[in-house]
Amino acid sequence: MSDTSYGVHSEVGRLHKVLVCRPGLGHERLTPSNSDALLFDDVLWVQNAQRDHADFVAKLEGRGVEVVELHDLLTETLAVPGARDWLLDRKITTAEVGGGLVDDTRAFLDTLADEVLTEYLIGGLSTRDLPDEYRAPELALVRESAGLTEYLMAPLPNTIYTRDTTCWIYGGLTLNPLYWPARHGETLLMQAIYQFHPGYTGNTIWWGDAETDWGRATLEGGDVMPVGNGVVLIGMSERTSRQAITAVAERLFAAGAAERVVVAGMPKLRAAMHLDTVFTFADRDLVTYYPDIVDGIHTFSLRPADAGGLEVTEETSPFIDVVASSLGLPKLRAVEPGGGWYAGERQQWDSGNNAVAVEPGVVFTYDRNTYTNELLRNQGVEVIEIVGAELGRGRGGGHCMTCPISRDPVDY
Amino acid sequence: MSDTSYGVHSEVGRLHKVLVCRPGLGHERLTPSNSDALLFDDVLWVQNAQRDHADFVAKLEGRGVEVVELHDLLTETLAVPGARDWLLDRKITTAEVGGGLVDDTRAFLDTLADEVLTEYLIGGLSTRDLPDEYRAPELALVRESAGLTEYLMAPLPNTIYTRDTTCWIYGGLTLNPLYWPARHGETLLMQAIYQFHPGYTGNTIWWGDAETDWGRATLEGGDVMPVGNGVVLIGMSERTSRQAITAVAERLFAAGAAERVVVAGMPKLRAAMHLDTVFTFADRDLVTYYPDIVDGIHTFSLRPADAGGLEVTEETSPFIDVVASSLGLPKLRAVEPGGGWYAGERQQWDSGNNAVAVEPGVVFTYDRNTYTNELLRNQGVEVIEIVGAELGRGRGGGHCMTCPISRDPVDY
Amino acid sequence: MSDTSYGVHSEVGRLHKVLVCRPGLGHERLTPSNSDALLFDDVLWVQNAQRDHADFVAKLEGRGVEVVELHDLLTETLAVPGARDWLLDRKITTAEVGGGLVDDTRAFLDTLADEVLTEYLIGGLSTRDLPDEYRAPELALVRESAGLTEYLMAPLPNTIYTRDTTCWIYGGLTLNPLYWPARHGETLLMQAIYQFHPGYTGNTIWWGDAETDWGRATLEGGDVMPVGNGVVLIGMSERTSRQAITAVAERLFAAGAAERVVVAGMPKLRAAMHLDTVFTFADRDLVTYYPDIVDGIHTFSLRPADAGGLEVTEETSPFIDVVASSLGLPKLRAVEPGGGWYAGERQQWDSGNNAVAVEPGVVFTYDRNTYTNELLRNQGVEVIEIVGAELGRGRGGGHCMTCPISRDPVDY
Amino acid sequence: MSDTSYGVHSEVGRLHKVLVCRPGLGHERLTPSNSDALLFDDVLWVQNAQRDHADFVAKLEGRGVEVVELHDLLTETLAVPGARDWLLDRKITTAEVGGGLVDDTRAFLDTLADEVLTEYLIGGLSTRDLPDEYRAPELALVRESAGLTEYLMAPLPNTIYTRDTTCWIYGGLTLNPLYWPARHGETLLMQAIYQFHPGYTGNTIWWGDAETDWGRATLEGGDVMPVGNGVVLIGMSERTSRQAITAVAERLFAAGAAERVVVAGMPKLRAAMHLDTVFTFADRDLVTYYPDIVDGIHTFSLRPADAGGLEVTEETSPFIDVVASSLGLPKLRAVEPGGGWYAGERQQWDSGNNAVAVEPGVVFTYDRNTYTNELLRNQGVEVIEIVGAELGRGRGGGHCMTCPISRDPVDY
Repeated sequence: MSDTSYGVHSEVGRLHKVLVCRPGLGHERLTPSNSDALLFDDVLWVQNAQRDHADFVAKLEGRGVEVVELHDLLTETLAVPGARDWLLDRKITTAEVGGGLVDDTRAFLDTLADEVLTEYLIGGLSTRDLPDEYRAPELALVRESAGLTEYLMAPLPNTIYTRDTTCWIYGGLTLNPLYWPARHGETLLMQAIYQFHPGYTGNTIWWGDAETDWGRATLEGGDVMPVGNGVVLIGMSERTSRQAITAVAERLFAAGAAERVVVAGMPKLRAAMHLDTVFTFADRDLVTYYPDIVDGIHTFSLRPADAGGLEVTEETSPFIDVVASSLGLPKLRAVEPGGGWYAGERQQWDSGNNAVAVEPGVVFTYDRNTYTNELLRNQGVEVIEIVGAELGRGRGGGHCMTCPISRDPVDY
Repeated sequence: MSDTSYGVHSEVGRLHKVLVCRPGLGHERLTPSNSDALLFDDVLWVQNAQRDHADFVAKLEGRGVEVVELHDLLTETLAVPGARDWLLDRKITTAEVGGGLVDDTRAFLDTLADEVLTEYLIGGLSTRDLPDEYRAPELALVRESAGLTEYLMAPLPNTIYTRDTTCWIYGGLTLNPLYWPARHGETLLMQAIYQFHPGYTGNTIWWGDAETDWGRATLEGGDVMPVGNGVVLIGMSERTSRQAITAVAERLFAAGAAERVVVAGMPKLRAAMHLDTVFTFADRDLVTYYPDIVDGIHTFSLRPADAGGLEVTEETSPFIDVVASSLGLPKLRAVEPGGGWYAGERQQWDSGNNAVAVEPGVVFTYDRNTYTNELLRNQGVEVIEIVGAELGRGRGGGHCMTCPISRDPVDY
Repeated sequence: MSDTSYGVHSEVGRLHKVLVCRPGLGHERLTPSNSDALLFDDVLWVQNAQRDHADFVAKLEGRGVEVVELHDLLTETLAVPGARDWLLDRKITTAEVGGGLVDDTRAFLDTLADEVLTEYLIGGLSTRDLPDEYRAPELALVRESAGLTEYLMAPLPNTIYTRDTTCWIYGGLTLNPLYWPARHGETLLMQAIYQFHPGYTGNTIWWGDAETDWGRATLEGGDVMPVGNGVVLIGMSERTSRQAITAVAERLFAAGAAERVVVAGMPKLRAAMHLDTVFTFADRDLVTYYPDIVDGIHTFSLRPADAGGLEVTEETSPFIDVVASSLGLPKLRAVEPGGGWYAGERQQWDSGNNAVAVEPGVVFTYDRNTYTNELLRNQGVEVIEIVGAELGRGRGGGHCMTCPISRDPVDY
Repeated sequence: MSDTSYGVHSEVGRLHKVLVCRPGLGHERLTPSNSDALLFDDVLWVQNAQRDHADFVAKLEGRGVEVVELHDLLTETLAVPGARDWLLDRKITTAEVGGGLVDDTRAFLDTLADEVLTEYLIGGLSTRDLPDEYRAPELALVRESAGLTEYLMAPLPNTIYTRDTTCWIYGGLTLNPLYWPARHGETLLMQAIYQFHPGYTGNTIWWGDAETDWGRATLEGGDVMPVGNGVVLIGMSERTSRQAITAVAERLFAAGAAERVVVAGMPKLRAAMHLDTVFTFADRDLVTYYPDIVDGIHTFSLRPADAGGLEVTEETSPFIDVVASSLGLPKLRAVEPGGGWYAGERQQWDSGNNAVAVEPGVVFTYDRNTYTNELLRNQGVEVIEIVGAELGRGRGGGHCMTCPISRDPVDY
């Protein structure tokens, strides 16, 4: 049964409900050796990261936002008849845990309470976690395995960036095939929730699922912004491919859920970045952006073609002007990272352009972006700060760490 | 109808039939920008690489080996009713070529002769290859796409390493899920051949196929050696995971096709290397190996357990001694890369340990491994040289470039 | 006039006087683009780094240590007649600032108060800092210059690691030729202090100076530990070469200042690390160390040879046992990074082995090394914590950030 | 006594005398581990590299060019009284070979014939090269030393790029301080030749020497082109800094040796490249260039200022047009790398723009640049091919491997 109040109709309208994921076991497993493979620049002090994340959540709640947490949702999901089996049947296979280890691993996991199982599903299962009675001789091989194959279930520390794995676009959502193998496991967990959790079943899935090989069609929510007025912005980057963008656009147009997709073709040299690392909304007509990258964006508009399929227009105006015009605005106010020449590059790096709004003109950003935050305040924005010393080490900010589930439109 | 003469029963027995793939269009598309993504260290002079590969093939044929070539096999396969559609239905999808481009791309490919289509299936299809009448407006997006998504079909230059994609293990073969995304497309081409080509259908597939998501179970033939005496050596590396090794071992044991799998756990720091880059056979009891790596191998033996499943033994002797003993030999003669301190590291890098035998004591290696070749000759081996100036730039040698289809056993 | 109380006679005896350097302008100039060249892993939030550094200094002072700060010392030095000219004559040359820019740059710097000039000498001088009246036409070239040549004086952010640039070894000191070009400018600043500042002139310089090209003889204080009992430990690493170690040993032996140098040959794969990143003293007979690296150390002892020159002994015992024996101890208590398998590697990375003692059994370490700190406390050590969220991003801890000038011996 | 016929007056005038250096011992010491530090992308097959280099030299001689070779010149230089001592006094120091090793190393080298000593001076001296009677106990340390400090004298394989170390600019030359530490040793060898060899003493040195620390002023000949008409082109790159360019310009202007220096500010992202890797002359008015880089060059002109010092003009026309105009030409014919989209990037990488002329319209290039060579031929240029399979692996072509000593002007 779907909750008809779900849906995300803008980037800055009142935020009613949002999904986050607290740091945990997966981050305790980050080491200098494996952090590259797990897409982190550095290891975190997990206790402090948890403290700062809890503070972020409390402040969101203080603003009237209902915050749901991935561990909680997954624990509740596992309690639904059939859900635990559905998930473990797909996770605990020879292909994932290795020959000879399936039965013992499954038997061990079956002994666990839902909340403990959740911890391992998100944080990974090491051979060291297995009690003696579940230790098959094949475990000897695991110890000598390279990289992340040393885990029976790989850690998924990037779940803290809930933005990427699923995204609500107006009245439905996508279950995204993510680019990096290290994140592939996230989508299955989300699918279990939307398939079994009584508060989440029955919603419209525009595109994607965790059980199909989507080939070169990969999509990450950090590139997707349903800005309102029937428009969706999507960054085309290393992680979000044209194959996925065109597929999603076709589905949205077919359902009448959107009228135009504005594609932000990221400059090739910086293709690894999500759109929301260089461009986010802070108010109805105000964005913060990083000009070194945004000025290099190639912009296209996709619209439904009369004959079916897509009409593709290559835009000649700057990206920000195309966005303004798509919203019916004469122009957007735009805040660049402040602080002068050197500070600008530093602030972008520190996720200074990665603001998330809880209502028009009220945003969360990292405390360390002092210059940018001041400029936002000069524009009348209320800036609420997230402590970023630890959370910022995965190169994602408040926008990345939140997946809006219910957000109002704004008038354009 | 399967050819009952197919099967690989040793590493050095008489080689009757072998699959190779000549350099081509995919290598012309290698550039300094994309070579990393395509797993090449450097660009090649394609004409010379083709010349040197043709010379290699001629010398193999001069030794009585029947050489089949991937472009030829695929062209013949496409002529089989149903094969072209089976393949294009799987390649030309929204997920691969992108929304709005499927129909035009397919229409263009359908105009092509089998041998031309083969060229694009292996060498990749660029938007520049599309004639005007097949250019949908969505092509504008492709030009701005990052990395290899700028191709409608990605180039597959690693097909020249036919060793990896499929491997014959005694009387059957595996269709391998390869580690790097850049090589995933190779397996589908091979599956088409084994499914449709009249000379290749009907064989026993031990494990693997191109349409299943094998998760973390990845296997590459450079790690697999059916050495005889019921034994298979498999390197456990970044590319060949324990998940795959145990799955294959279970299948082989269940079919009675092997009695023991000797797992060579590659040192973690060098995990990216295939076993055959540091260890190959040159004669019944003679190997060439690179001690800096091989001395660090952790060795395990897998055998069928009485109760079903695998019996795992952690070996305490050095890898080479375990191999000797598994073959019933008192010891193996072993040739290290010659030339002293510096030359050894150089020769391993230049694929000096990557010999492929056409019969006991007759091997092909690169000409540039002068020291190692001399040492092999001192052991009575006949060494036939491959010109390696261009072919060696993808870091693979004669062993990597050959996939034996029919090879005799040797007595042990 | 030398201060006869200067001298460092152990690693853990009472610390009387220490040199530090607060974060500043040089760190505001760190960006994601130049941080590699400047040897930082990440950019810092400078204000917070300054706050945490000030807290570290206050706690040192609270323990009775006299703390002197590099900016202060340099400002005082510039006030000494002749010092400013001596320094600027060496810094503001065509080779450093470029042709046509020497006169204007010097003229501008000559207008500055000593404390402002100090800020630029340490933090670097950008063309943007030059007022209009000092802007020669050659400045146009600077803007297009690559990397750090875009500065008129390059930033020296690694000055916060005062440990490396000079080191007191018993009754004298060395003025170190540092390994990386990005740090070469540090030694000249220190030399100015020891040559002109009334509190620092007249001391014995064992080896080194800033005006000689020392070739491949490079030395960094993070590798040097005058542990007492006539012994000096020196790590032999990428940064501290055998050329420098043997030169220093010869000087110390000739002066009768030491009887034995224990050389810790760092494992080649990790050669970039200083000894103090994997091994420091916490008490008279207690060390904290990182076994993954320390167990791979090749140890040598250098002693004066009868015939002059060095007697070299290759040690066969583990490094820690050699150190114990050199101090006349039966053994050293040794604390490994705590927290189990994954946490150990994380703690070493976070400078968990980089403790600095203010007296036997009282050390400063980063707060984030919670496990290691607990283990030290279990051994009776008083652990005082430094906030490491920002300061830790240059990969140095309390030991790196302190250059002891006066420290008591301990009895062995 | 200087040879008054020496001097380089253009890039394409008749080439009378040129310095080269054959591959040798230093290249046999290249390994995959040290090649980065030694600035090579890959190891070479030294015998074949020598064969191909000898062929290049024979073809140069066949065109009437007098070719002198670095090993020969250095051997002849060592025979001059005082030269051997001058050189070894500077090479065999504690700073270079390490404490305790100076006497034995020098004693060994003093036993060697001049041509053998030359081999070691260029190719490096390993501890393995020392006979037993010269093995001091300190050698034990060397074996465990990191990186290139394991050599007593470091190998200098980049000497094959004679272009960089010295450059003749009209009637005098520069002794260049090179950017990378791995090449610093080259300049001392060249200085010995110009200081002692009877055929080379007495020439005008515009700037540079091997015994001064030139700080951030670094110059490499691959960036320097005395094109004629009183003009010198100099690339401003990571390796050739504005500090050096302005210093050289001042000297040239002061001597009346040039009237204008055209500075090619290389795009920052590609700053590592020499100007001659993207732009060289093939005829009086014909250049071959790589537009992806050259179109991004920021161009400046330096001229003597009336008041002394430099007059700096920022040019607004494209680099190639500035060059044409500086030579009094209406325009330059320009050949881009041929072969279409992908081939262009490949050809630049393979040194396709690195032509060296022996007279107007007659150039040497690598054989593998088939497309570019064809385009040059279409412009009437005679292209003589160098076999590049091995020589090209250091990323330098015919222009890099030649240091013209005597070349005629051309009329402009």
